[in-house]
Amino acid sequence: MSSHQPGRHFLQIPGPTNIPQVVLAALAKPTIDHRSTEFGQLGLEVLSNLQRVFKTINPVFMFPSSGTGAWEAGLTNVLNPGDTIIVYETGYFASQWRRLATNLGFEVQTIDSDWRTPVDPHRLSERLNSDTKQKIKAVCIVHNETSTGVTSNIAEIRQVIDDAKHKALLLVDCVSSLASIDYQHDDWRVDVSIGGSQKGLMLPPGLSFNAVSDRALKCHADSQYPKSYWNWSDMLNHNEKGFFPYTPATNLIFGLQASLNIILNEIGLKNVFYRHARHALATREAVHHWGLDIVCQDSVAFSSTVTAVMTPNKMSANQLRQKILSKFNMSLGTGLGKFNDRVFRIGHLGDLNDLSLAGTLAGIEMGLEICSFPFNKGGVSKALDHLIRADQN
Amino acid sequence: MSSHQPGRHFLQIPGPTNIPQVVLAALAKPTIDHRSTEFGQLGLEVLSNLQRVFKTINPVFMFPSSGTGAWEAGLTNVLNPGDTIIVYETGYFASQWRRLATNLGFEVQTIDSDWRTPVDPHRLSERLNSDTKQKIKAVCIVHNETSTGVTSNIAEIRQVIDDAKHKALLLVDCVSSLASIDYQHDDWRVDVSIGGSQKGLMLPPGLSFNAVSDRALKCHADSQYPKSYWNWSDMLNHNEKGFFPYTPATNLIFGLQASLNIILNEIGLKNVFYRHARHALATREAVHHWGLDIVCQDSVAFSSTVTAVMTPNKMSANQLRQKILSKFNMSLGTGLGKFNDRVFRIGHLGDLNDLSLAGTLAGIEMGLEICSFPFNKGGVSKALDHLIRADQN
Amino acid sequence: MSSHQPGRHFLQIPGPTNIPQVVLAALAKPTIDHRSTEFGQLGLEVLSNLQRVFKTINPVFMFPSSGTGAWEAGLTNVLNPGDTIIVYETGYFASQWRRLATNLGFEVQTIDSDWRTPVDPHRLSERLNSDTKQKIKAVCIVHNETSTGVTSNIAEIRQVIDDAKHKALLLVDCVSSLASIDYQHDDWRVDVSIGGSQKGLMLPPGLSFNAVSDRALKCHADSQYPKSYWNWSDMLNHNEKGFFPYTPATNLIFGLQASLNIILNEIGLKNVFYRHARHALATREAVHHWGLDIVCQDSVAFSSTVTAVMTPNKMSANQLRQKILSKFNMSLGTGLGKFNDRVFRIGHLGDLNDLSLAGTLAGIEMGLEICSFPFNKGGVSKALDHLIRADQN
Amino acid sequence: MSSHQPGRHFLQIPGPTNIPQVVLAALAKPTIDHRSTEFGQLGLEVLSNLQRVFKTINPVFMFPSSGTGAWEAGLTNVLNPGDTIIVYETGYFASQWRRLATNLGFEVQTIDSDWRTPVDPHRLSERLNSDTKQKIKAVCIVHNETSTGVTSNIAEIRQVIDDAKHKALLLVDCVSSLASIDYQHDDWRVDVSIGGSQKGLMLPPGLSFNAVSDRALKCHADSQYPKSYWNWSDMLNHNEKGFFPYTPATNLIFGLQASLNIILNEIGLKNVFYRHARHALATREAVHHWGLDIVCQDSVAFSSTVTAVMTPNKMSANQLRQKILSKFNMSLGTGLGKFNDRVFRIGHLGDLNDLSLAGTLAGIEMGLEICSFPFNKGGVSKALDHLIRADQN
Repeated sequence: MSSHQPGRHFLQIPGPTNIPQVVLAALAKPTIDHRSTEFGQLGLEVLSNLQRVFKTINPVFMFPSSGTGAWEAGLTNVLNPGDTIIVYETGYFASQWRRLATNLGFEVQTIDSDWRTPVDPHRLSERLNSDTKQKIKAVCIVHNETSTGVTSNIAEIRQVIDDAKHKALLLVDCVSSLASIDYQHDDWRVDVSIGGSQKGLMLPPGLSFNAVSDRALKCHADSQYPKSYWNWSDMLNHNEKGFFPYTPATNLIFGLQASLNIILNEIGLKNVFYRHARHALATREAVHHWGLDIVCQDSVAFSSTVTAVMTPNKMSANQLRQKILSKFNMSLGTGLGKFNDRVFRIGHLGDLNDLSLAGTLAGIEMGLEICSFPFNKGGVSKALDHLIRADQN
Repeated sequence: MSSHQPGRHFLQIPGPTNIPQVVLAALAKPTIDHRSTEFGQLGLEVLSNLQRVFKTINPVFMFPSSGTGAWEAGLTNVLNPGDTIIVYETGYFASQWRRLATNLGFEVQTIDSDWRTPVDPHRLSERLNSDTKQKIKAVCIVHNETSTGVTSNIAEIRQVIDDAKHKALLLVDCVSSLASIDYQHDDWRVDVSIGGSQKGLMLPPGLSFNAVSDRALKCHADSQYPKSYWNWSDMLNHNEKGFFPYTPATNLIFGLQASLNIILNEIGLKNVFYRHARHALATREAVHHWGLDIVCQDSVAFSSTVTAVMTPNKMSANQLRQKILSKFNMSLGTGLGKFNDRVFRIGHLGDLNDLSLAGTLAGIEMGLEICSFPFNKGGVSKALDHLIRADQN
Repeated sequence: MSSHQPGRHFLQIPGPTNIPQVVLAALAKPTIDHRSTEFGQLGLEVLSNLQRVFKTINPVFMFPSSGTGAWEAGLTNVLNPGDTIIVYETGYFASQWRRLATNLGFEVQTIDSDWRTPVDPHRLSERLNSDTKQKIKAVCIVHNETSTGVTSNIAEIRQVIDDAKHKALLLVDCVSSLASIDYQHDDWRVDVSIGGSQKGLMLPPGLSFNAVSDRALKCHADSQYPKSYWNWSDMLNHNEKGFFPYTPATNLIFGLQASLNIILNEIGLKNVFYRHARHALATREAVHHWGLDIVCQDSVAFSSTVTAVMTPNKMSANQLRQKILSKFNMSLGTGLGKFNDRVFRIGHLGDLNDLSLAGTLAGIEMGLEICSFPFNKGGVSKALDHLIRADQN
Repeated sequence: MSSHQPGRHFLQIPGPTNIPQVVLAALAKPTIDHRSTEFGQLGLEVLSNLQRVFKTINPVFMFPSSGTGAWEAGLTNVLNPGDTIIVYETGYFASQWRRLATNLGFEVQTIDSDWRTPVDPHRLSERLNSDTKQKIKAVCIVHNETSTGVTSNIAEIRQVIDDAKHKALLLVDCVSSLASIDYQHDDWRVDVSIGGSQKGLMLPPGLSFNAVSDRALKCHADSQYPKSYWNWSDMLNHNEKGFFPYTPATNLIFGLQASLNIILNEIGLKNVFYRHARHALATREAVHHWGLDIVCQDSVAFSSTVTAVMTPNKMSANQLRQKILSKFNMSLGTGLGKFNDRVFRIGHLGDLNDLSLAGTLAGIEMGLEICSFPFNKGGVSKALDHLIRADQN
C-alpha cells in the first residue's frame, strides 16, 4: 500500500492495539465450515474463555461488529422503545453512546462532567433518588473512558444504585478495560457489559461482546424493542453447541482463540492487569516530569490502558502527533470531541513490553522537542526508574 | 485445534469459500490506526472498487457484520416502522430475511414457492397490481438462493415493478452472486443490494455491504425507523474521506483490498463470471450423469455458484456429507430448512480452478459409492469432458 | 510476482511438494537468537525427531543446504581423497551424484542401467566380488530415483555387501523417500543416509541431512579429505546442546519443527507410508488405463512418491506439461537427462489427499486429450475405484 | 514452543536481525516449481538486484547455505590446493575464517591484532612487500567484524596491495556490512565478496553470496581445488536464465525478493546507510555517557551495524545479557572468543527505527542498573539528543 518505513510501526493509539505475531498468524488460517463439528468446538472454547475474561458464569454474546454494535445490542435487548436511561457523560465515548441511544429512540438523561474526572457517585445517587417513579430503566457507564484515560469505579456505582433501591439496570462499556484492567462482571453485578476485540484482547476490530446478568436476561425476555441481528435469544440457542444464528466472523474467532489462550493460559489475567498498571504508572512518571497536564484529574481514576495528555499553551496536539508519525513511525491517539487538537492520547495496552513502552515515551519526548513544546527533558529516564523499581511481578 | 488431515481441506460449501493465499496473508498484516491518512487511502480504494463490483456509481456502504446485518441495514434505512413489504420466498435464505423483517416490526407479505424455481414474474406482478393503494413499500428478492442454487432474473423483476407502476423499492440479496454471477446494481435499477464478504469476494465472513440507488437515499432521508449502527447517514459523511463512523474491521479490509485487486485487476470480472458459469455447468453434467435430481427445476435459473442436489430415495444427505468429510476432507453444504437431510449443496464459487472442481466432484462420486447410493458412475468424466469443450476463455 | 491464477496451484512435481498451511505459517515466525536457550531446545527437538524419521539412534546431521550438499557431506566425511567408489546409476539423480563425486576427486566406478529398473543385486554382487583388493570404499545407491519412480531394495543391497564380505560403506540417497516410503537407517545398516527437506518432509528446499552409522563415524575420524562446512565433528559438538557450528537456517527449522510434529505425532509415520503407497497405486491404475507406459518396469520397484510416465509415439512431454500448466495451473515434473521431453513425472508425495490426487489425475487426463495424445479416457475413474477399495487405513 | 512474552521480542544481536512483516509473509508463500518460467523470472530479478546491493556489474553467486559456506566457496573457487593466503585476524570471525581455510588445506599466514582496531595498512603492506616470491595468493579481510564492531577500510587495503604490486587476490567478508554500510565491490576492486542473508538484508539465515571480479573468474577457471556444491561454473550456466544447478531455497528467495525491493526501491541504499550510521552514533553516545568502554578503539573504524561494549571491572557480560533477556525480552550479542563474558554486543542493523533503538538502549540502561554495574544513568537521553540533532535525512 505504502512504501516501507524502517522498523516496526509503534501503534500507540488506545486501540486497535499491537497484535502478537501468533494472533496475526491465526487470522490467516484457512476459513472453515461454520456448521462443522470443528467449528462448534472452537465456538464453545472461545465463549467459555470469554466468560473467564469477563469474570462471569452467565453467557457472553459475541457479535460480528464493532464495539458500537454491542452498545446497540446491549440497549435494545433489555429496554423497551422510548425507555428513559441515564448516560453519565465522562468523555467522548460516553457522549457517543448517548447519541446512539438517542438515535434508537430512547429518552436519554445525561449527567455531564468536565471529561477529566470519573463518575461521581454522589451526583448519580442524587439523580436516582430524585427519580421517585423509577422511570429510569438503565444507567450507562463507561468503565474506562478511552478518550480521557479516566477509569470509574463500577463497584461503587453498583452500590449507589443499590443504596437508592433503584431498579435501573447497570450497563457498562468495558471496551478499553477488558483484559487490561480488572473487570468483574458478576461480582460487580453489572447487567450488561459491552466489550470489543481491538483493545486488551489484542485483536483487530470486528468482534464485540455482551456479558449479561440474570436480570438482563429477564428484561430481555420482556423487551418489545424490535431487533434481529442483535437478538440474544437467537444467539443463546445456537451458542449452546458453539454455533451462531448467522455466519460468524470465523477468522477473527481464530485470532480470538489464540489471544484468549495467551491471556488466560500463558500469561494469566492477574499478570496482564499488573503489567498494564505498571506501564501506566511509568507513563505518568514521564508525563509528570515533562511538566505536562494529564487529562485525568483524579489520582484514583488514572487509567491503566491510556494516558491522555493536554498540550501546554494550547499548542497543537495534532501537529505533534503528525510530526511523531512522520519522523518516528508512531501513531498516537487524537484528542476527541472538545479535546480535539488539545489532547494526545498514549495507548499503553495490549501486547506491549517495557522496551516498547520506552520507545513510545522516547518518541513523545523527541516529538515534544522537535515541535518546541515547553517541557522538561528526561521523562523517559523517570519512566525507566519506575520500571526498575516496580518489578515485573 | 485438531490434528492435521493430509492435504488441503476442500471447503465446498457455498460460502465461506476457499480463500487465496495472498488474501489470507493480507489478513495477517499488522493493524493500523483507523484514523490515519494511510487508512483513509485504503478506505477510499476499497469503497471505490466495491462500486465496480456492484456496477454502481452510487455509494456502497460497508459494515463490520455478517450479511444478515446488511439485510437489517437495507430495510431499516429505507422503510418506516410497520411498513408493509413483500418477501418472495424462493428458499431458506429468503425465509430468513422474512423472519428478520418480521422481527424488526415490518408487515411482511410472503409469496411462497416450492423452493425449486426462481421468482415467477407473473405472481409478483399479480400481487403488485392487486396492491392498488400502494401499501407495499418494498419488494425483497434473493438474487441467488444459496440454499437451493436457483437464480432469479432481477432485470425481469424490475420490469414487473415498473410495468405495475408500483412505487415499491426493490431490495435484492446478492450475497452469493456478487463477484461470481453478473450483477448490475445500476442497470437493473435495484434500490438496495445486499452483499457479504465470504462468497465470491473470497474473504472470511465479517463484512457486509449495501449498494443503494438515489431513490433509496431519498427514502433513507425520510425514514423514521430508529437506527444507529446501520445508519447510512453517518457512513456517508465519513466514507467521503475513506473513514467510518466507528472502528472498522481493519484486517478484513486489508483482505478486501487484496481480493478486489485480484478480481478487478488481475482476473477481471468478466472472466470471473465466465469461470463460475463454466464450473457450474461441469458440475451439473456430473450430477445429471449420476442420475441425481438437481433442486433447481428451471434450466434458465441454474446457479453459477452452488448446485443443490436431492438425494435419491430419501437417503440421508447428512450421512453422505459426514462420510465425505471424514474420508475425503471435504465440506459440502447441508440441506437447509425443509431440505434438511434431503439435499446436499456443492459450492463451486470463490477461488476455485478446474482441478479443485474435479477433486470436488471425485469426492462426491466416491462418497455416493461408499454410502451405497443408487447412481451411475462416471460423472467426473462427464464434467472433465465439459471442461475440455468449454475452454477457459 | 505474477497475476493471480484462480484456485490453488497444484504442485505435482516430485518435490518441492505442497506444504501444509501450518508449516508455511511456521516459516514466517520471527527469527530468534540462534545462541539462545530457546533455540537450543528447538534444535534438540528437531534433531531428536529427525532420528525417529530416519529410524536411527545415531546422530543425524543437518545442514543449511540443498540435498546436493548432503551428498557432498556424506562423501567427504567418510572417504579420503582419491578413494574409489561405486555409483549405481539407476537414473538421473544417481548420475548427478556420480558427477559430484568425480568433481570432488573420487575415483567413481559406475554400474549402468536402463534407468527403468532398480538396483540389480546380482550385478552389484559381481562387482564387489571382483574387487578382491577391496579397493572400493563406498557403494552409493539412490533409494528412490526421483527421475524415474524406481525404488531399490536397500535391505537386499546391504545383504549383497555383507555376503561379499566387502568393507565398502553403504551410502544411500533417500531424498525422495524419506518420510514417504519406509526407510530404516539402522535396521538396514546404512552408513550414510542423505535426505532433504523439500519432499516428504513437506518443507521448502534449504535443509539437508546425513544420518550415520558407527562405522561412518569411525571412517570420519580417519578421513583426510579437506572440509569445513560439511564437517561432522564440528556439528557433533554443537548439536549436543541443540546448537550448530555456524548460523543455522532458523526459519526453515521452525518449519521443520512443525512438519515433524505433523508427521510423527499427528499422523504417524506408518499412516504416512500407507497413504503414499495408496496414492501411488491409484495413480498407476489411471496410467495403466490410459494405456501409457510407466518408466519403472519392475512391479516390485514402483515408487510410492513419484510415477514417471513415457509419452506414446515420442510425443512431446514438455508440450503436454506446458499445456497442463497454462490451462490447469498444475506443475508436473519434467523428464530429466535422457528422458527429456519423453517423460513426465507425477509427484504424489508430501501433503496430499485423495481429492487433490483426483484433481491431479483429472488435469493429466484433460491434458492428454487437449494435446491429442492417443490414450483411453477414464483413468481418473479407475483411480477413484482404487481409492474406494483401498480404504484409508 | 515457549509461552508468550508480552510485546515483541527485541532481537538486538548483530544478526540475524529483525525481519519486516512483509518479508516474513513472503517466506510463507507456497513453494513453486524451481524449473518453471515463474521461478526463472524470480531468479533473474533477485540476482540482478543483488548486483545493485554489492555495487557490481559482475555475477553474484547465491548458495543455499550460511555465510560460512560462502567463505568456503570464495576460497575453493579461486585457489589451488595448498595455496598460501593471509588472514588478517581483526576478530573472532576473521579467526573462524582462518580456521576454515586451514581445514580446507590452505597455508594460512595470520596477521594478528588486539581485536580492537581495524586492519593496519602498514602491517599488511609490510607483509606483502616481504613476500618477494608472490607466494601469497589471497588476502582475506573482514570488512566489518561482527564480533568487535570494527570496520576496516577496504579501499585503503586495495591500495596497499596495488602499491605492493602484489598479485594476491582480495577476498572480503562483508556479511555484517552488506546492505547496511556502503560497500563497493567493483570500485574497491574486491575479487571475492562474501555475504549472507541474515544481517542487513533482513532475512533469516540460509542464503549466502559471492560477488566476484573478472580476475576471480579467471582464477576460478584455473583452480584445481576439488569442489562441486560451491562450484561457480555450474552456477554461472544456470543463473543466466535465473535457475540454479541444484534445488534452490525457494522460500528464502521469496523473502529475498521482498527485502531487496524494500532496500533498493522503497527506501534506497543511501538512506539505508545513513540510517545505520545515525543509529550507530546514537548508540555510541549512550555508551559513552554510561562510561563504558567500546571495544573499537579507532574512531574512524566504528561500525554502523554493531557496537561491542566491554563490561567494567570484569563484570559478567553474560549475566547482564541473561538478565536483560529474562526481564526485558531482548537478546544482545554475546562476547565471542577471548571476549567471552567481557563484552556484550548491541546489534543496530536491519529493520530498525529510532523508537526500537530507544527501546534497545533503555533495556541496556535498565539492565546495567539492575545488575549493579558502575555506570552513569542518562545514556538513553543522550542518544535521543543525537537522534533529534541528526535528522533522518
